[in-house]
Amino acid sequence: MSRRRQIYEGKAKILYEGPEPGTLIQYFKDDATAFNAQKRGTINGKGVINNRISEFVFTRLSHIGVPTHFIRRLNMREQLIRQVEIVPLEVIVRNVAAGSLTKRLGIDEGETLPHTLLEYCYKDDGLGDPLVSEEEIACFNWASHEEMQDISSMAIRINDFLCGMFSAINIRLVDFKLEFGRLWDGDYSRLILADEISPDGCRLWDMTTGEKLDKDRFRRDLGGEEDAYREVARRLGLLSENDSGPGEVLDLAHHRGRLRGTKPKKS
Amino acid sequence: MSRRRQIYEGKAKILYEGPEPGTLIQYFKDDATAFNAQKRGTINGKGVINNRISEFVFTRLSHIGVPTHFIRRLNMREQLIRQVEIVPLEVIVRNVAAGSLTKRLGIDEGETLPHTLLEYCYKDDGLGDPLVSEEEIACFNWASHEEMQDISSMAIRINDFLCGMFSAINIRLVDFKLEFGRLWDGDYSRLILADEISPDGCRLWDMTTGEKLDKDRFRRDLGGEEDAYREVARRLGLLSENDSGPGEVLDLAHHRGRLRGTKPKKS
Repeated sequence: MSRRRQIYEGKAKILYEGPEPGTLIQYFKDDATAFNAQKRGTINGKGVINNRISEFVFTRLSHIGVPTHFIRRLNMREQLIRQVEIVPLEVIVRNVAAGSLTKRLGIDEGETLPHTLLEYCYKDDGLGDPLVSEEEIACFNWASHEEMQDISSMAIRINDFLCGMFSAINIRLVDFKLEFGRLWDGDYSRLILADEISPDGCRLWDMTTGEKLDKDRFRRDLGGEEDAYREVARRLGLLSENDSGPGEVLDLAHHRGRLRGTKPKKS
Repeated sequence: MSRRRQIYEGKAKILYEGPEPGTLIQYFKDDATAFNAQKRGTINGKGVINNRISEFVFTRLSHIGVPTHFIRRLNMREQLIRQVEIVPLEVIVRNVAAGSLTKRLGIDEGETLPHTLLEYCYKDDGLGDPLVSEEEIACFNWASHEEMQDISSMAIRINDFLCGMFSAINIRLVDFKLEFGRLWDGDYSRLILADEISPDGCRLWDMTTGEKLDKDRFRRDLGGEEDAYREVARRLGLLSENDSGPGEVLDLAHHRGRLRGTKPKKS
């Protein structure tokens, strides 16, 4: 087991060969990068928390019928996933203006957008993941027209689900990044959600205080990034109440407070 | 104020004339009915909690672009709403088999449906709100083809959002009921979400224990309905931790646990 073949190393994750054909092991690192890796650092325990948050989100997305690469979590930092051919696009879903959008279009950070905006960036570190149009995507055949329809409709569904999920824990989902992959079956392929969903790729603001609970704390040297990631996990019920560090992420029952005076379910 | 004109009294709510034309006041009662009002009772404090939960859900749905009749909560049991012409349909959204579906089609309660199912019932107490087909809806002109398209797409978006919202608090959204209304502007109308979203019209099961946190506790004489409704509100952060009864629903900041060692947001 210790001599697994490494398939790919990214900025925040490593992919290893999986136990069966068509599977991979996704390992979550604590490494953090920003501004196309010009800024590098470590967020202590981030990998453990992102593994757990991404498991939580992907599992529940599959329950509403969004297909994902997630199979199961293996341990603190690893999950078993389906091997896919990654579509070379970062799909950005924006509800509120922040980040690159504010600079590019001169919109104030925090302004709610007239409606949800989808953006696509071509995945190429050498080029700095440039913004691309749907015409360019078609022109260079990065994804077919049918695939782009699937991507946009899945992205909108995922956004609705995540807006609900985060609003229940008093967090505003400002924007987030998705990646999709092709699962081949002979000559045919279908798209499924790949990569991860975690505070690394989302902007998450506390609805009451406006505090940033995401990687912007690292990007902007605000400090407290470990606490911010842990706070998101805690609100999702993924940390025990007395947890003092990322080493203790536990699989406890989500909500221990039980109903008083009610009978257990019979079904 | 005490001599307001009553417009309508339903099983769980009363509608009064609002302070301005085009508005109504929706008052939430504690009365509970089931099986087309053959069973009647009271769930202590239900009105207070449903008023608060429905405010929470409708406010957040409007944030993702779902138009609703909700304007603002006025007090413990009342909210200000827009006056609409109610579409005479109950729209049932089902993710998991339960209730009438299990009886009608012989499916076991708890079976996850192959995909989300929309059902329509014609709102008529005398007939017991019978199930109707889309052809019948068109035939009797209860809603136009375009309205049915709007209703189904809004219902699917609302379901995605609510699945996310409830999954964040470890609750499985089994099914729920929606009502829509027409907002007229001259000869044109548009559809908006009306009525309420609360444990009265949803089936909500704890994801870990399977416990029912909704009106089925009343329908099936399981007991503990007050605690169940309060538990949903508590998980959504709408009750103070020490709350001992529905009289104390408070507008406290949602999550008091703040980040340690982080700076306040600057934007």
